[in-house]
Amino acid sequence: MPAFDSLDALAAACRTLPEPDEQAAGAALARQDTLTKPRGSLGRLEALAVWLAKWQRRAMPRLEQVDVLVFAGSHGVTAQGVSAFPSEVTAQMVANFAAGGAAINQIARSVGATLSVIPLEVERPTADFTAGPAMNEAEFLAAVNGGAAAVPEGCDLLCLGEMGIGNTTAAAAVATGLLGGDPKKWVGRGTGVDDAGLERKASAIRRGLEANRAALSSPLGVAASLGGRELAAMLGAALAARHRNVPVLLDGFVCTAAVAPLAKMARTGLDHTQAAHVSAEAGHRGLLTALGKDAILDLGMRLGEASGAALAVGVLRGALACHAGMASFAEAGVSDKEG
Amino acid sequence: MPAFDSLDALAAACRTLPEPDEQAAGAALARQDTLTKPRGSLGRLEALAVWLAKWQRRAMPRLEQVDVLVFAGSHGVTAQGVSAFPSEVTAQMVANFAAGGAAINQIARSVGATLSVIPLEVERPTADFTAGPAMNEAEFLAAVNGGAAAVPEGCDLLCLGEMGIGNTTAAAAVATGLLGGDPKKWVGRGTGVDDAGLERKASAIRRGLEANRAALSSPLGVAASLGGRELAAMLGAALAARHRNVPVLLDGFVCTAAVAPLAKMARTGLDHTQAAHVSAEAGHRGLLTALGKDAILDLGMRLGEASGAALAVGVLRGALACHAGMASFAEAGVSDKEG
Repeated sequence: MPAFDSLDALAAACRTLPEPDEQAAGAALARQDTLTKPRGSLGRLEALAVWLAKWQRRAMPRLEQVDVLVFAGSHGVTAQGVSAFPSEVTAQMVANFAAGGAAINQIARSVGATLSVIPLEVERPTADFTAGPAMNEAEFLAAVNGGAAAVPEGCDLLCLGEMGIGNTTAAAAVATGLLGGDPKKWVGRGTGVDDAGLERKASAIRRGLEANRAALSSPLGVAASLGGRELAAMLGAALAARHRNVPVLLDGFVCTAAVAPLAKMARTGLDHTQAAHVSAEAGHRGLLTALGKDAILDLGMRLGEASGAALAVGVLRGALACHAGMASFAEAGVSDKEG
Repeated sequence: MPAFDSLDALAAACRTLPEPDEQAAGAALARQDTLTKPRGSLGRLEALAVWLAKWQRRAMPRLEQVDVLVFAGSHGVTAQGVSAFPSEVTAQMVANFAAGGAAINQIARSVGATLSVIPLEVERPTADFTAGPAMNEAEFLAAVNGGAAAVPEGCDLLCLGEMGIGNTTAAAAVATGLLGGDPKKWVGRGTGVDDAGLERKASAIRRGLEANRAALSSPLGVAASLGGRELAAMLGAALAARHRNVPVLLDGFVCTAAVAPLAKMARTGLDHTQAAHVSAEAGHRGLLTALGKDAILDLGMRLGEASGAALAVGVLRGALACHAGMASFAEAGVSDKEG
């Protein structure tokens, strides 16, 4: 996929999507029905194996190369007092990722995934969206292209996540811009703001909607004017993955909001993604419902960093191990269901 | 733990339980609060790390040796037409486990756990409980002792599961005997019976309650008269694990019903166990609620074989990797929350 040099080119790529491989999916489903278990008894594991087949375009999918991408960005809206942590924590956490000390370092290793952290001009925050667009078109496209280019060659499964003090406010603003409703529906405590902080978040979003009204008529306009670089990069990575037959695990609220424009641009735009988990961040459950997504895990996590996405890789490994390794009724000499 | 030579000895062991190590748990919790993440943001993962610490009695728990035990037994109540599969499938599946072709073989390998399959007189079904006790005292104690003896030396975490055509009926009978209510509340489709099969299951349980009325005043009496050898073995294994400081992951409906007598014998009898998943078998969610258990996974699985328990090992590995491997705020030079 070449880099996008205009919003029009990006919009076209969002609307011209590869369809799933129903033949591979059908073959995977047929195989599931021969394996030594009551049909359907592995539940979601069966569906996940078929989903991998459908989007990898092979009846026997593989998970040899699982990549975790964590994008980091800085947000001008932190000037509005929307985070419990100071904004320098974004750069400090990038250093912590590099040193191997963050949660995602541990979880990625525990599921056999390769972690890449991509800082996006962390030293240069986006503009404060309460006064105008967070990013101009060039800045937005650069971040989208950066995300798309970060999807590694040979990737079998992509986990997306982020780090960015202030970005639950940006994500809630994007959700409000795309889906409407009161901003209070979409704001949550993020890293731990109090009730007054929640009100500051909702207030900032209201002012952001007002200040960017003209841009909000298109999903990409919402992403550029209310989002952030790491959100734009996740959108770009998810789009590139679709065009390259790579299934995607989404992380929590920020990640889901970041890719939500794809669902607004094309009805099936997120069909190659799974919600790896539902986070404890207040707006996530409602956002997943709005997108028709049923999360794999529900563990009260709210860290970001792709931590929930990476944790769900273990479930997919189990699903694939059963799909690939189980004996059929015929092979094992086990009697099938009576009648 | 010596083998039990009487129901009284077994009952005493069920009532004289080691308490949790609150000092280890407190140290683990204190460590969690220093790690580079907003406090509590790993949700259930933090609670699971503390739970492992509490029951392994060490602030830094370990998962070097994870054991999966699958007990298999045969059930006389299959004569009542309670299963969609013929009863010879139990022995056939034991052979499939030995050949490595079942789901649990794949899942155990994928999470780095060691699988042991323990057939319990599979060629000699328990008596049909609609006409009297499934097991006499000697048979029941032999199965309990077999389960207790199967817990491997050096085990850091135990996953319990089962195989036994007819055993969702036995489990529903045990649940009814322990918790009351109409048998219809506890019966489900098992390997796939139709509505008439559901009715045969409920009818068999009603007759079983009638035929064993005298035995139902004690939880162990319920287990012996309405359960089965693999259920008794899981009870014995869970009890032995408690006495040896080994935390336990429970599998689905049959496994949970099998260990439920421990909760009836002592209020904290199942505190060293976690419900690894909530299965799609109809009675499981209600049984977990009755026992105050919140499942880790909810994936619509209903296979048994410890498949759900083993799958959750991946979540615990992620929890422990974070607990052991993350940097503290001080170590990483990351600013802590403001104010």
